[in-house]
Parts: sequence; C-alpha cells; structure tokens
Amino acid sequence: MASSEWRIECIFSLFATSYSLFSFMANPILVEVTRGPLVESVHRGAVAVSDSRGQLRLAVGDIERPIFPRSALKPIQAVPLVESGAADAFGLTDRELALACASHSGEPQHTAPIAAWQSRIGCSVADLACGPHRPMHETTATAMIRSGERWTPLHNNCSGKHTGFMTLARGLGQPVAGYQDYEHPVQREVERTLKEMAGLSGDLPHGIDGCTVPNFALPLAALARAMAAFADPGGLPKPRAEVCGRILSAMIANPELVAGTGRPCTVLMRQAPGIAAKTGAEGVYVAIVPALGLGIALKVDDGAGRAAETAIASVLIALVALNDEGPAHKLAHTPVLNTRNAIVGERRVPSGVFA
Amino acid sequence: MASSEWRIECIFSLFATSYSLFSFMANPILVEVTRGPLVESVHRGAVAVSDSRGQLRLAVGDIERPIFPRSALKPIQAVPLVESGAADAFGLTDRELALACASHSGEPQHTAPIAAWQSRIGCSVADLACGPHRPMHETTATAMIRSGERWTPLHNNCSGKHTGFMTLARGLGQPVAGYQDYEHPVQREVERTLKEMAGLSGDLPHGIDGCTVPNFALPLAALARAMAAFADPGGLPKPRAEVCGRILSAMIANPELVAGTGRPCTVLMRQAPGIAAKTGAEGVYVAIVPALGLGIALKVDDGAGRAAETAIASVLIALVALNDEGPAHKLAHTPVLNTRNAIVGERRVPSGVFA
Repeated sequence: MASSEWRIECIFSLFATSYSLFSFMANPILVEVTRGPLVESVHRGAVAVSDSRGQLRLAVGDIERPIFPRSALKPIQAVPLVESGAADAFGLTDRELALACASHSGEPQHTAPIAAWQSRIGCSVADLACGPHRPMHETTATAMIRSGERWTPLHNNCSGKHTGFMTLARGLGQPVAGYQDYEHPVQREVERTLKEMAGLSGDLPHGIDGCTVPNFALPLAALARAMAAFADPGGLPKPRAEVCGRILSAMIANPELVAGTGRPCTVLMRQAPGIAAKTGAEGVYVAIVPALGLGIALKVDDGAGRAAETAIASVLIALVALNDEGPAHKLAHTPVLNTRNAIVGERRVPSGVFA
Repeated sequence: MASSEWRIECIFSLFATSYSLFSFMANPILVEVTRGPLVESVHRGAVAVSDSRGQLRLAVGDIERPIFPRSALKPIQAVPLVESGAADAFGLTDRELALACASHSGEPQHTAPIAAWQSRIGCSVADLACGPHRPMHETTATAMIRSGERWTPLHNNCSGKHTGFMTLARGLGQPVAGYQDYEHPVQREVERTLKEMAGLSGDLPHGIDGCTVPNFALPLAALARAMAAFADPGGLPKPRAEVCGRILSAMIANPELVAGTGRPCTVLMRQAPGIAAKTGAEGVYVAIVPALGLGIALKVDDGAGRAAETAIASVLIALVALNDEGPAHKLAHTPVLNTRNAIVGERRVPSGVFA
C-alpha cells in the first residue's frame, strides 16, 4: 500500500470516531465545483476500495449504510446468465455479454445487436419490461427526431441487461413474461449471486429500478468486495471464477458497448485497457482493477452523476490504476464552461481526500 | 411568528452552536429521495426567510456563507433598467420587464417579443453576449430539430435579461458592446443596486455566470433581505420603492414569461397569484411574498435543481403562502417514476425541517 493510501486510512479513522459520536454528521466532501474565487457547490459521499477477501484498501465516509447500486449491479446480474449455461446454450458472444452489462447510449451499435440477439432467443422488443427513453447519445436522438422515429424500450439503456434476463429465463426453462418480478427465478438467481459475491446473508432490502427490475441494496464495502471478486477471482469456486473472468474480459474488450461514444465509462476503459468501470444512477460508480486485485465502489450522497464521474477518475488516478492525463485528467479536473465556452470554474476532488 | 417557525429557530440555534464547534459539519438535509424502503439520495442546504429590515423569520443551515444567486439575481438586475429611466425611454411594457427577469424556456412566446424589443432599441441577436443553448421547452426544441433550425443566443434563457442590459446601456448613453464586462457601467449599476438592497458594503466576490455576465456572491440572509425589499418596499427610498413594485407586478402578472410552460416558477406563481418565484442555477431559489412582507432565499449545497424546487414549494407551504395542494403539493412531494411510469419512490422534505 502506498503511503498516500495509509494517510487516507488515518484520516478515515478520525472521521469514523467522530461519526459514532455525532450520528448527524455528513459524509465528507468528495467533489467541489468552483466558480471564480468561490466553491459554488459541493458533493458529499463515500468510497470503498476492497480486495476480494473484503480487506479495505481505502474507506472514505460511511461505507456500511446500504445503498442501491443501480446499474453498477449489471456485471453481477450477468453472472447467472453465464453460470446457468444459458449464455452458451444460445451462443452468446463477448459483445453480447458486454451489452448485458451495459448502460448503453442507445446508438445503432447497441440497439441493432440487441435486437438480433432477441430474435435468436425468440423474443422481441415487445417482451422488454423496461420502458422507452430518449437515447443518451445526442446524435442518435437528433437523427431519430429528424426522421420521425420514436424511441422504444430497445433504446432504454438497460435493454441489453433485460435481454440477458430473458435469455436466462429461457435457459432456466421459465416463462419470459414476468422476468422483472421479484419472485421470478431470474431475480432470485440475481439476489442469491449478489449475496454470495458480496459476502452477505439474509434478504437484502430492495427497490424498483428505473427499468422496472428489483435493485438490491447493500453496503458500499460489500459492493466493492463483490467487484474485487471479478478483479481477483482466485477465492471463488472454479466455475464461478471462470464466469467472472469471462464477463470481465467481455467488458474490457468492448468499452464502447458497455456505455457509448464519449461516455465516461468508455473513455476510462479505453485509457487503461485492463480495468472495467461501470456507472449507476443516482451517483454510483464501480470499477474493477485486476492488476491490483481491487474493486472500487462509490456513491455520491445527492445522486449527482457529474460528481461520481469526477470521483471515480480521481480514485483510479490515486490508486495509480490510471495516469493523470488525457480523458482521466479531464474527468478528474473538469472545466466549468459558460455558454460561450469560456472556463469559469472547475469540478474536482478537494486536495487531501484521496491523495 | 407561528409556533412552528419558532421551533425551527430553536433547532437552528442548536445547529449553529454545533457548527462553530465543528467547522467541518454540513448543512442539514433539506430534501430526501426515497426508493422502496430506503432513502436513496439526500440534498443538504440552507434557507433564509427575512423581512425587509433583515429580521430572520426562518433560518436553516449556514445562511452567512456567500453563495452565487445566479439567475435568482434577475429581479435585482432589472432595477437599474427601470430606475435609470431607460425602461420608460424605450417604452418597455410589463411583459418586457417580466422577460428581463426571466430564465425563459426559449418558447416562441419568449423569443419573439425579445427579438421585437431588441429591434426597438436598435440591437439584434448579434449583440447578445450570451451563447446559444437548447431551449428548455422540449416541444420547441423538437420542432426546431425537425425543421432544421439551430438555436441561437436568443434561445438562451437569459436573453431577456441581456436585452434589458443592452437597453440600460442605451439609456446610460454607453456603448452596448461590452455590456457584460465587470467594468461596464451596466454591471457597476447592478452591483451598486444589489449591495444597497441587500444591506451590504464593499466589493462583492464575483464569478462569471453561464450567460457571461458577472454574478455577485452574497450570504443567503442578505439575498432573502433583498427579496423582502420587493415584498415590503416601505423602507426603500420612494423612487426605488416604485421601481421594485413595478418589477414585482410585472413578474406576478406574467408567470409564463418568467419561466415557461410547466416550469416550477410558473406553476407556483399561477397557483398563488401574488407571489413571485425565481430559480437560479446550481440549486438556488428565491421567492417574494408581499402578503407576508417576506423574502425567501435557499441554496442546495450540491446544486441540484430538483431539490431546490422541492424545497421552495415546501417553504412556501410551511409559511402558508401556498396551500398544500395541486402543483405545489406535487412539487413538495414528487413521485419518483420508473420508465413504465410506476411510482417507485418520492422526493420530499424530511419531516421536521420546515414544519
């Protein structure tokens, strides 16, 4: 462990002591947004970096409160798809596996192969439980408006994950209809797998995600540990280790499918081939760093995606998983622009939080 | 003062004491966002409600730290326009005054009259210092994309304010070019007026707003006091009292021009004719309540507009300036929907914060 990491742990120990004395205390400031001479806005939150045995390498803020990982859960939601044999039964490619783990931008490079995959399993867009939303990729959305095309559930950023769920339902010999229900065997497999990989027992609290499937809450520390299991699968049973390795490889090989053109997950994965980064709604980010055997999980208290992007880039830089240059530097030190594109401030992690 | 307001002040006194002991303590949680059984995200912030003498009726969180009011400054930025005689010299209507105070949605009902006003003062869109941005009104933006029309600085939500600045420059016999510069007499008049109305002296810290003009930082308590001067102008010199009354009347008479179709400022002002509500970027909201002689100013620490909307509706309800029904209730208790429009959570002020 680098000395800077030890320093963080000491800071955290002080914080944790104070926290127990004053339960109303907030998480520390992870990201600040300046304008001219002042800090205009701040984002508080928590970060956990864990190895596969659950040993913490970095802990900032309250990492024991259950949080919803939202789409950061997708790599784990893909595990039963492969482990059950369903992925092989339907001849899933690595590109399809990457799409199962994706919060995609709704570009043709995402929707076309997902539609083809659906037709291979005897399903269609009509079977998707998720609702339609505007593609995140602005060029695609604009082209659709110009041509009068409407977005469908296929453009939902989760349509790859849902197609994975439908494939798993087929593989389990279960009805596809209702695959999004808490009681459906698909979702029971997801919760069981998550608990095993995160080292948790008992029922997990759950809410309904934007795409209609259950999302299971767990502490950031446990989420980081589950991600570390992908980074260092040596402690997993051999079949699951192989499954996790296959999912991780599929993500790493296809950064543009896991998110989309210009998106932070994609540019971070392109800059450091060998890591996987995955965003989740409401300020969540996870990353998998095989070279260090570590998993990272963070949650911005207020749910701001802009802060989660800045924080994950900064954590990866602090861990030396990424060089502080190029897109990673730009995410960690993002200029605030006015409508004439002049720089009027900066979004960044305050000094001393991670390094 | 209602007993609930006293209770808040007591809570705040405790908070303020703790704050001085632990300077790293955060503002209280103003808004929480639930999903299923859990609070998924929280927004911290501060709220000041003041009368025109600077007496606080409600104070939550740190109301002395300087914040950027952003577009909540617009009613004050309009004062020199009227006070200088420029508004009368160019025959400004109340609708044009409302547009000078607006963060408009870029609908034709906004852009057409602003263009006509510009031509009356011998200016055009080419003189606007603000840059172009997509109209906030989705139907307008979609229609523009379909017809191949590009957004211009006229669609910038601040184009009415800028046209007011250009009118003031003309009225002062100053060049229009450079009206956005800190040193330009237009911006000197704005800062002088703000300091007088907020009861402040000395130069104010300033940053550059999204629309390229200086934005001046001041404590929330002082911003609330400046808004109270509109609500209860009795303490102002008579000419300024008349100016403030005219600006307030112009806003109240034209809720759809101050913001736009379906926007929170517009729906709140429609529900309670007699109050003015004005949003600012990065989680700011102000309101003017003439019936109570009060000004309200709030800032969400993390800059989230969703939380500022929920908080302003809730403060207005707590002050009985608005009934807890209709659009105000929906803003104060906003359902969180998934992409199939099922309710999966709620955005609201935690009980006990304002009432």
